[in-house]
Amino acid sequence: MLSAADNELLTRTGPGTPMGDYFRRYWLPVALSREVAAPDGPPLRVTVMQERLLLFRDTRGRVGLVEGRCPHRGADLFFGRNEDCGLRCVYHGWKFDVDGKCLETPNVPAKTAEHMNVSIKAYPVQEFGDMVWAYLGPDGPPAGVPELEVGLVPPAHRYVTKKLQQCNWAQSFEGALDTAHFSFLHMPAPSVKSNVNPLAQADEKRLAWMRNDPQPRFHFFDHEAGFMIGASRKADGNDLYWRSTQYMLPSHSTTPSTLPGETYFGYSWVPITDHECWIYTYGWNPVRPLTDEEVAKFKAGWGQMPEIGPDFVPLRNRGNDYLIDREDQKYRTFTGVRGVTEQDAMISESQGLIYDRTRETLTATDAGVVRFRRIILGEAKALQQGHEPAAPQHPQAYTRRSGGYMAPGDVPFEEAMRQRFGDAGGRATPEAQATAAAPMPAAPGRA
Amino acid sequence: MLSAADNELLTRTGPGTPMGDYFRRYWLPVALSREVAAPDGPPLRVTVMQERLLLFRDTRGRVGLVEGRCPHRGADLFFGRNEDCGLRCVYHGWKFDVDGKCLETPNVPAKTAEHMNVSIKAYPVQEFGDMVWAYLGPDGPPAGVPELEVGLVPPAHRYVTKKLQQCNWAQSFEGALDTAHFSFLHMPAPSVKSNVNPLAQADEKRLAWMRNDPQPRFHFFDHEAGFMIGASRKADGNDLYWRSTQYMLPSHSTTPSTLPGETYFGYSWVPITDHECWIYTYGWNPVRPLTDEEVAKFKAGWGQMPEIGPDFVPLRNRGNDYLIDREDQKYRTFTGVRGVTEQDAMISESQGLIYDRTRETLTATDAGVVRFRRIILGEAKALQQGHEPAAPQHPQAYTRRSGGYMAPGDVPFEEAMRQRFGDAGGRATPEAQATAAAPMPAAPGRA
Amino acid sequence: MLSAADNELLTRTGPGTPMGDYFRRYWLPVALSREVAAPDGPPLRVTVMQERLLLFRDTRGRVGLVEGRCPHRGADLFFGRNEDCGLRCVYHGWKFDVDGKCLETPNVPAKTAEHMNVSIKAYPVQEFGDMVWAYLGPDGPPAGVPELEVGLVPPAHRYVTKKLQQCNWAQSFEGALDTAHFSFLHMPAPSVKSNVNPLAQADEKRLAWMRNDPQPRFHFFDHEAGFMIGASRKADGNDLYWRSTQYMLPSHSTTPSTLPGETYFGYSWVPITDHECWIYTYGWNPVRPLTDEEVAKFKAGWGQMPEIGPDFVPLRNRGNDYLIDREDQKYRTFTGVRGVTEQDAMISESQGLIYDRTRETLTATDAGVVRFRRIILGEAKALQQGHEPAAPQHPQAYTRRSGGYMAPGDVPFEEAMRQRFGDAGGRATPEAQATAAAPMPAAPGRA
Repeated sequence: MLSAADNELLTRTGPGTPMGDYFRRYWLPVALSREVAAPDGPPLRVTVMQERLLLFRDTRGRVGLVEGRCPHRGADLFFGRNEDCGLRCVYHGWKFDVDGKCLETPNVPAKTAEHMNVSIKAYPVQEFGDMVWAYLGPDGPPAGVPELEVGLVPPAHRYVTKKLQQCNWAQSFEGALDTAHFSFLHMPAPSVKSNVNPLAQADEKRLAWMRNDPQPRFHFFDHEAGFMIGASRKADGNDLYWRSTQYMLPSHSTTPSTLPGETYFGYSWVPITDHECWIYTYGWNPVRPLTDEEVAKFKAGWGQMPEIGPDFVPLRNRGNDYLIDREDQKYRTFTGVRGVTEQDAMISESQGLIYDRTRETLTATDAGVVRFRRIILGEAKALQQGHEPAAPQHPQAYTRRSGGYMAPGDVPFEEAMRQRFGDAGGRATPEAQATAAAPMPAAPGRA
Repeated sequence: MLSAADNELLTRTGPGTPMGDYFRRYWLPVALSREVAAPDGPPLRVTVMQERLLLFRDTRGRVGLVEGRCPHRGADLFFGRNEDCGLRCVYHGWKFDVDGKCLETPNVPAKTAEHMNVSIKAYPVQEFGDMVWAYLGPDGPPAGVPELEVGLVPPAHRYVTKKLQQCNWAQSFEGALDTAHFSFLHMPAPSVKSNVNPLAQADEKRLAWMRNDPQPRFHFFDHEAGFMIGASRKADGNDLYWRSTQYMLPSHSTTPSTLPGETYFGYSWVPITDHECWIYTYGWNPVRPLTDEEVAKFKAGWGQMPEIGPDFVPLRNRGNDYLIDREDQKYRTFTGVRGVTEQDAMISESQGLIYDRTRETLTATDAGVVRFRRIILGEAKALQQGHEPAAPQHPQAYTRRSGGYMAPGDVPFEEAMRQRFGDAGGRATPEAQATAAAPMPAAPGRA
Repeated sequence: MLSAADNELLTRTGPGTPMGDYFRRYWLPVALSREVAAPDGPPLRVTVMQERLLLFRDTRGRVGLVEGRCPHRGADLFFGRNEDCGLRCVYHGWKFDVDGKCLETPNVPAKTAEHMNVSIKAYPVQEFGDMVWAYLGPDGPPAGVPELEVGLVPPAHRYVTKKLQQCNWAQSFEGALDTAHFSFLHMPAPSVKSNVNPLAQADEKRLAWMRNDPQPRFHFFDHEAGFMIGASRKADGNDLYWRSTQYMLPSHSTTPSTLPGETYFGYSWVPITDHECWIYTYGWNPVRPLTDEEVAKFKAGWGQMPEIGPDFVPLRNRGNDYLIDREDQKYRTFTGVRGVTEQDAMISESQGLIYDRTRETLTATDAGVVRFRRIILGEAKALQQGHEPAAPQHPQAYTRRSGGYMAPGDVPFEEAMRQRFGDAGGRATPEAQATAAAPMPAAPGRA
């Protein structure tokens, strides 16, 4: 539960808001690289934290993120000509490069033009992990984009996409840190005796453990980029089934199901407005290329990859009540909604365009949510006092994994993580990988 | 004509408004029973006077009207599981019964749960006349739902539906009290010599009387539930053609055409927002089941029953200008719009989303409208001074009829009504029925 | 560049705004005559500078522009009966003539009606040039509608239509005074070596001159109705290619391409709201009827006549990004948008719903725009000080033409215009025509 003031602070990211200022200290994804694939291709409209911008790739392959308004007479450069290393306004031919510099003003005599001092706002841009990242803040960008492992593996080892979420970023993000809800939201209907959920993806055994222990115990490990969450559930005998998740400032996370040897998944939230956000969503395998089957699955919708249209809007969305099927809900699945990420979206969006945190009743399994809020609110408030955040200075600290693990009941959290990842905080360094758990034999029926 | 302040008072019914407070002293229909027919069926979204609620029928057939937001993390219970005598949130399994009581919180240890004190707001609900009624006010509900005769007859004697009106409740309601407009709105085009209106339903004789006397004289009879209006027009010879209408607080009415022995009709207005309302609309016959022909007619659109889609939105509506046919208007009907209730809706909705009563010019035939406003504004203002309304304490006072009657010109209003209904105020008690007018022979061409 | 206050002043025309007051001193087109062609036909909804009105043609052919709300109970007269020299409300039969006078109140006894004093607001209306003009101001209308030449020629000599522009009137109008943009916006793609633009209409030679001289010199000639703009570009040898345009208060203009003997074009802007306007668009030939080919071309979309649907909304519009074709833009045309007026609309609408003139960088070729703003802002401010505008008193001053002309480089602006039009200000009087330039031989490939 937050005060109304803290709820405002957490959720508003427009220019000049405290959280907007805070987000603007970080490199953030603003598009998929493939959305602006072709040099001299059409510019792409991009709205980031309420700033309406244009993204374009120039003749030499450089990407520019600029204010899309010609300073001459205000025409929208979206309709401009992307040609010869610049974006040209079609009204009177003014032309700007990826840095916002004005290259030509052909309706103005050369002598006059020399004394004009026009340019358009442009933000630093980098490409990493098949995403275009931008820095929208003051004073030049931090050292480098956060080194998420998805961007470090060879391109064939990853699949990167995005999906629209029709609600405020923070409540959608909180769902990622709440691993307790898997015991409900993604389960089969209670009447289903089998633990196989035909609409979700997990093997029968893990589903049984989650179903049977809806009160996981939460543990935390703080690190330079944020913290790692471990939630343990009773498994067979005295064993514990651990599911871990990363929180990396300001809005990156990784998913909890991956067993040793399986493909990892993560996501990064970027506000569009305060009522909509993009979730950049990716899978990567550190040790091998993704298989054609995997890629086909991800494209068709699987796990955190929704079934989407060409506009990256999930086909099952707020506007159609996620095509909820009440018969399915009664007899087959807990929700009647097809798809894990669609189930997550249903919950997050159902909390309202901006979730009112003054009226909630938090419980022990909301520990991840509580810690996330405390940290990011603290950081944003500190920035208002002049204290710059440290995490943007440590891009390497973002190379982390999370996932599932089985351990005897007396192995504590940090030790379990050390066994699983070779590092208590899930770092994916070469040293860590040398001591990490070996791949597990594939469970029957798992892709 | 009202002051701007009184117009606001009359039309605003959201929580905390004076008229909203006043309406909340009454049981009001909030759904048709058949919209939540099946036990454990899907919950129904219901908005009543700007309160967004959920209606559901539990395993044992009880109906609950609750705030649809889980108090744990704010998820929308619309997506919940209606099972085993409660509505369960799919996020973490919290479950609530029809009274809003929290039955289970499975992600919380039992010991902790004992000390939690969570519930959701729930309103008292009753079913009557194939409608679900709710009491949204303070201090426990009044004795019983208003005993409209439609709810007292056997189910086979009635047909109950609803229709959306895309304007404020009050102006739509006022149309029901203005029986003068039948001389125009529902008439054939002036060029039509016959008095048969192919698009309305009344026999030729009555149409002629209404057409030829557009200045009916209004009379009133006050009673415990409101008042009865009688409007007389010159008929053949020295006779008067009486049409009577009930006003019952706060927003019920009955229609003026029914002759002795015919089926009665009535309607109840319930605000959704200040810009939309439901009109619960019903026909009932006190002495016999409705015929298959009658029911088929009502379903297809007839009189006060519009032609509607599965969402209860009239097919001819504001969005399509009621499919007005200007050729029809020129040569066949007064409006060019098909259907009596569609013609009424066209006028009410054309007055604006909220009709501005500061700019009107009232006439003698608006007497019913004027009396309605005076009474309900007086009652709402009195409530603000602490005077509770009396009508909710007299549910039996709502068992009333209205309709048409022929009487010699020297029979005064109350006596005419006494002859017609056995009671000057249209009460439908057994005693009254014993002395009421006998059924009239069916007019040719009447259903 | 304007101050924020002047930008507001320029763009807001609702009732009570300074520019709204100023526009209301002029006769303005409010519909095409053919939109209310038939006597006793359906009334037409018309919104002019935020006033929602009804236009109808009565039995005798007179046109009325009235407030469309019945003063009795506020019903919308749009649904009324247009019959027998008046518009009759279908609720209770009140009837009003084209002057707003109430003719009948049939639900009111004759004696009472004598003492009622009801009417609806009605504005003076005239038809001229196949358009319905209205005067929405105070104190009776000025002498006559502005005598645009399109209205003085025989009907067969003209084609008149209108098109919706989805932005504020002023920025759209400014585009008409900025003849410099033809060197860019309407050109072939730079890669096209030929100067024939398959999507625009001008002969190859003129296109080359415009393409090769993107810095035309602007000249002005002030007259009683506003001013004439001449912009000269270098042509072959020492010649100048002149393009001239009229600005006539408050919002009329004529186009710059017409060579002697060709058909003239002009347009008149009328605000609907501050975010939308109509552009009444017309072509006329003073000396001969338009050919069937010309009319067919104008109906299908050509030059300033867009391809439109039955609602006068351009088919290529803001909602579909003008069907921009990026391949076309790369290889064939400067914009990838088909149609001259569609290209203009794209730019104007891309400036925003209301263009923010506080953030622009004006250049020498924006001289027409600057002069327009200075004059109309000055006039509107003067009116607020009590100085009535003079132009409405001189309807004959509006009979003007503009167009293209070739002249040796040492012929000054006024002399070039005198040669071209027989009058330095483009007046189309008989005297002027006697000395105007003779028709030029049709350029190959011109319609």
